[in-house]
Amino acid sequence: MYSVINRVRPAHRALAFALRFNANTEGSSCVVTDGRRLSPGVSADVDPLRATSRRFCSRTALTQGLLFRQMFELESSTYTYLLADTQTKEAVIIDPVLETIDRDLKFIQQLGLKLKVAVNTHCHADHITSTGLMKKRLVGLKSAISKFSGASADIHLSEGDKITFGKQYLTVRETPGHTDGCVTLVLGDQSMAFTGDALLIRGCGRTDFQQGCAKTLYQSVHQKIFTLPDECLIYPAHDYLGRTVSTVGEERKFNPRLTKSLEEFVGIMNNLNLPKPKKIDISVPANLVCGVQDI
Amino acid sequence: MYSVINRVRPAHRALAFALRFNANTEGSSCVVTDGRRLSPGVSADVDPLRATSRRFCSRTALTQGLLFRQMFELESSTYTYLLADTQTKEAVIIDPVLETIDRDLKFIQQLGLKLKVAVNTHCHADHITSTGLMKKRLVGLKSAISKFSGASADIHLSEGDKITFGKQYLTVRETPGHTDGCVTLVLGDQSMAFTGDALLIRGCGRTDFQQGCAKTLYQSVHQKIFTLPDECLIYPAHDYLGRTVSTVGEERKFNPRLTKSLEEFVGIMNNLNLPKPKKIDISVPANLVCGVQDI
Repeated sequence: MYSVINRVRPAHRALAFALRFNANTEGSSCVVTDGRRLSPGVSADVDPLRATSRRFCSRTALTQGLLFRQMFELESSTYTYLLADTQTKEAVIIDPVLETIDRDLKFIQQLGLKLKVAVNTHCHADHITSTGLMKKRLVGLKSAISKFSGASADIHLSEGDKITFGKQYLTVRETPGHTDGCVTLVLGDQSMAFTGDALLIRGCGRTDFQQGCAKTLYQSVHQKIFTLPDECLIYPAHDYLGRTVSTVGEERKFNPRLTKSLEEFVGIMNNLNLPKPKKIDISVPANLVCGVQDI
Repeated sequence: MYSVINRVRPAHRALAFALRFNANTEGSSCVVTDGRRLSPGVSADVDPLRATSRRFCSRTALTQGLLFRQMFELESSTYTYLLADTQTKEAVIIDPVLETIDRDLKFIQQLGLKLKVAVNTHCHADHITSTGLMKKRLVGLKSAISKFSGASADIHLSEGDKITFGKQYLTVRETPGHTDGCVTLVLGDQSMAFTGDALLIRGCGRTDFQQGCAKTLYQSVHQKIFTLPDECLIYPAHDYLGRTVSTVGEERKFNPRLTKSLEEFVGIMNNLNLPKPKKIDISVPANLVCGVQDI
C-alpha cells in the first residue's frame, strides 16, 4: 500500500460494507442492508427537514495551510480540484480531465507543487480522466480510485482510507449508488467534501447505468454526506448551471430530490428518462484503465 | 448618497484622479499622470519580478462571518459573485448577468439574504447586466457602478468608497484602462479582490474599444492591484479556460502580459487583433441603463 494511504475507522468500513451494493450483482437488483446501528453518529433515520433548524449558510473554508483550486472543464461541465499543503507543497488532484491536462500541469508547475496522488471519485461515463497521462508526465505520481470501481489504479481505496498530503488529508467515504465505486473525499477538518456524482448542487448523479441504484444512492447521501456538519462545503464533480459550491446544510434543506422520502426519491430517479451519455462508450472503457491503455 | 456607501481614503482618491483617463477624451489619446508620490504604500515603480521572493500560493480565504458564492454564466464566461454577512444576512452581488437572474435570485431567497447592492465592475460589452431587472424584483435594491462609466445607477462609485453589508465591506479602487469606469472591489481584510476586466487570471481585459488604454490599464493593475497582499485572492469577471481564482502573488509572477515592461505591454495590447465582441452593440447601450430601459 502506498504510503500516503492510511487505513482507519473500521466502524465506517463496516457501515460501508453493509451499505454496499454487492459487487457481483449485475444491475438487475439492488441489495442494501440497513446500517442503522453500525456506526456511532451515523444514522439511517435522518429526517431531511431537521436541517431547517440548523445553519445552512456557506462561508469560505477556514482551513489553515491549505491551497485550494477549483477548475472547470467546459465540454463535460466537470470540476477538477487541486489541494495542497502550503508548507510541504505536497498535493492531490481530484477528477482531472484529459482535455485540460496542460492547464492543470501548468498550475502544478507554477505553484511548485509535488503532486502525490491523482484520484477519481468514480469511473466517469462522460469524460476521460487524465490520470494515466498525468502519471506519464509526473514521475512518482500515483493514481487512486475505489476498489469497487473495477478500474486499474496504483491505489484501490476503501472506506476510511486517508490520502495524506503534508499535514492535510482526505478521508474516503464510500458513497455508492451512481456507480458501485463512488467515493466522497472529506477534508480532515470536515470543512469540505468532494462528492463526485453522489451529491450534486440541488441534484444527484443518475442511477440508470453502470450499476446505478437509486436506493443505494439515497442511503449513501443520507448516511455518509448529510451526517457531515451543516457548514461543510460540498464540491461536486459537475454542475450544469454555473454553480460552484454548496453546503451540507443547504442540500439537506433544498435538494429537490434528496429531501424526499426514499420511496419518492426512487420514483423520481426511475422516471428521469435521460438520454445515454454521449461519450459513455469511449469514456468508461478508457477510464477503467486510467484513461490510457498503459498506466 | 445611499447609506451603505461611505467615502474614505482621500489619498487614494487623489491617486485615482491623477491616474484617471480624462472623461472627455474620445479614445484617440491616453493621458496618464505619474502617481508615484501621491499615496504612501502605492508605488508606480513596481518591479514585476519582485514577486518571486514573495509567497504566491493561494489558500482558501479566511474571512470569518462571510458567505461567499462564485457563479458562472456559460455563454459569456462571466463570473457573478454573491457576498453576505452571515449574521445580518445583508448581501452584495457583483456583475450579475441577465441570463442567470433566476438562478441568482433563487440562491438569495433560499439563503435568506437581504440584497442591498448590485454592483457592476464596469459597463460590460459582452453581456447584459441583470441589475435593472433585479431591482424590479427586489424592493429596496440599489444599483451601483463607477461614476466614470457613463451608466445610470442609484449609486455612482468613486475611489475609496465603501460598500458595506453587515460587518463586511468592499472598498472601491478605480482601475481604468479596459474602460474609463472600471473598478476593483477589495474585501475589507484584503483577502479578496474582484478585479472585473482589469486583471484576469494570467491575462487582462482588452484595451481596444470603450475608451480602452493599455498604458492606463498597466498603471492601474500595478498601482492598485499588485500592491495588495500576495495572498489576496483575485476573482475576475471572466475566465475562458475554467480557472476560477488566482492570487496577487501569482499574477505578479506569472501573468504573461503584466510582468512585462510598460512598453512591451502596450505593444502586446496594441497587436492583439481581436474580433469585435459579438454582443457589444446590444450590451453596451443596455448596460448604460442597468440592462433595462426603466431602472
